[in-house]
Amino acid sequence: MKLLRYGPSGQEKPGLLDASGTIRDLSGVIPDLAGDALSAAGLAKLAALDPASLPAVPGSPRLGPPVSGMKNFVCIGLNYADHAAETGAAIPKEPIVFLKSLGALCGPNDDVMIPKNSVKTDWEVELAIIIGSTAKCVSEDEAMNHVAGYAVCNDVSEREWQIERGGSWDKGKGCDTFGPLGPWLVTKDEVADPQDLAMTLDVDGVRMQDGSTRTMIFGVRHLVHYVSHFITLHPGDVISTGTPPGVGLGKKPPMFLKPGQTMKLSIKGLGEQTQRTVAYE
Amino acid sequence: MKLLRYGPSGQEKPGLLDASGTIRDLSGVIPDLAGDALSAAGLAKLAALDPASLPAVPGSPRLGPPVSGMKNFVCIGLNYADHAAETGAAIPKEPIVFLKSLGALCGPNDDVMIPKNSVKTDWEVELAIIIGSTAKCVSEDEAMNHVAGYAVCNDVSEREWQIERGGSWDKGKGCDTFGPLGPWLVTKDEVADPQDLAMTLDVDGVRMQDGSTRTMIFGVRHLVHYVSHFITLHPGDVISTGTPPGVGLGKKPPMFLKPGQTMKLSIKGLGEQTQRTVAYE
Repeated sequence: MKLLRYGPSGQEKPGLLDASGTIRDLSGVIPDLAGDALSAAGLAKLAALDPASLPAVPGSPRLGPPVSGMKNFVCIGLNYADHAAETGAAIPKEPIVFLKSLGALCGPNDDVMIPKNSVKTDWEVELAIIIGSTAKCVSEDEAMNHVAGYAVCNDVSEREWQIERGGSWDKGKGCDTFGPLGPWLVTKDEVADPQDLAMTLDVDGVRMQDGSTRTMIFGVRHLVHYVSHFITLHPGDVISTGTPPGVGLGKKPPMFLKPGQTMKLSIKGLGEQTQRTVAYE
Repeated sequence: MKLLRYGPSGQEKPGLLDASGTIRDLSGVIPDLAGDALSAAGLAKLAALDPASLPAVPGSPRLGPPVSGMKNFVCIGLNYADHAAETGAAIPKEPIVFLKSLGALCGPNDDVMIPKNSVKTDWEVELAIIIGSTAKCVSEDEAMNHVAGYAVCNDVSEREWQIERGGSWDKGKGCDTFGPLGPWLVTKDEVADPQDLAMTLDVDGVRMQDGSTRTMIFGVRHLVHYVSHFITLHPGDVISTGTPPGVGLGKKPPMFLKPGQTMKLSIKGLGEQTQRTVAYE
């Protein structure tokens, strides 16, 4: 299933994408894509529905992030060996974990705002794991039981603030609109191998990132297990799993985003995102 | 005013503490201590009430964190010159910012759970700033307009996970029950000078921390201004402002928490917290 949330920001309704690409309204079935609706039992209930029996949503509404009620927007740093190399960092011995502000979360095609005084805003296409049930200190064998599915995430980053301003990376990761997620939550049954997904990111039509989840250092199963020992994961939480090479910081010379550009992201089977960059207001 | 939330975890109701120390039920006035209720107008409405007209709450109910709807549990690292010295760290040139998982948030007197496999769980008494209205890129002059008040926070920390496990500090800061907050939100009108508050923390009756917000490197006004340029702050968000000397990591030899101990925290005018440490379950 491809599950989504549509409508104006803050007023999104749950929906699903049927086989013909029409959005079907789920708001008569579940209050939102959150909590128990994301559990194995909750998803099985949705999978048993006949999409044709659900109201078709007309037009092309805005899409919001495909989950709500998130408590933790977890990110993994330097999780592709070739990306670590391009940034000049050593390959981590164990996963680098940081948190994005929940305020960064936005829809997959929402504008990305260049923050006030930013000079190094950068892109990162990432595979996001969406948690379906509470995971606390789970083993690798148990980890996948707690995964609802996957989505595309752009882990937008301000490199000066992340790296040059002292302390943790969190300063450069949590600005408003720095976390486009979606277009849909693709349930895990539709993703045969999360460690074999091609992923790309273009800026103004130029291919910047062209990678695959094959080159991840720490895979999905290990990350859910690992993070759950430090931070209890709840339904709707996200672990964004790091980015392949091709970020602006790694270009020679480095390239950063300016207002009026277009980012286009894709991960095989998970759909596409398109964002315009806009000036601070 | 001293505002609070009482009742079982997840089912707290809003209340206020009257001059005699009785909890008065605010649930007929506001749905929760969140959002607009924390704005200047919202707090003025509560201040205009006659507490004697509100239902008295019998007994001594559990207290929850005094705000809900939090999006950002921001913490400031190494913000006391003498604490930086005891940990062997340099004095930061600008504030060190990190995020605690929202899952860490708990009531002021709830049990603190020593995480599975933890050997270095430590304490930190801190002054928490509670945000009352959205603050995005605000000046120092504007900063206090966005502050609802203050509370005591215990920024419980796992030092091995924070320092020795690679990457950001977030791994050692976001475990369940690592963020007791309260007992009350004390509105800013009752705090004459947030930079002159005595603060203590005892473990099993032994005074471990004995400091004052006077020795903060970056004060309340600056921190609200500073953080708001990286992360937009929303009503109910918290900035916990760092800890004075006397943490377990700084003792010679270092001391860490074990199950069955009692922490008692106080900040002048903001009340006391008491937590028992319990084993992982």
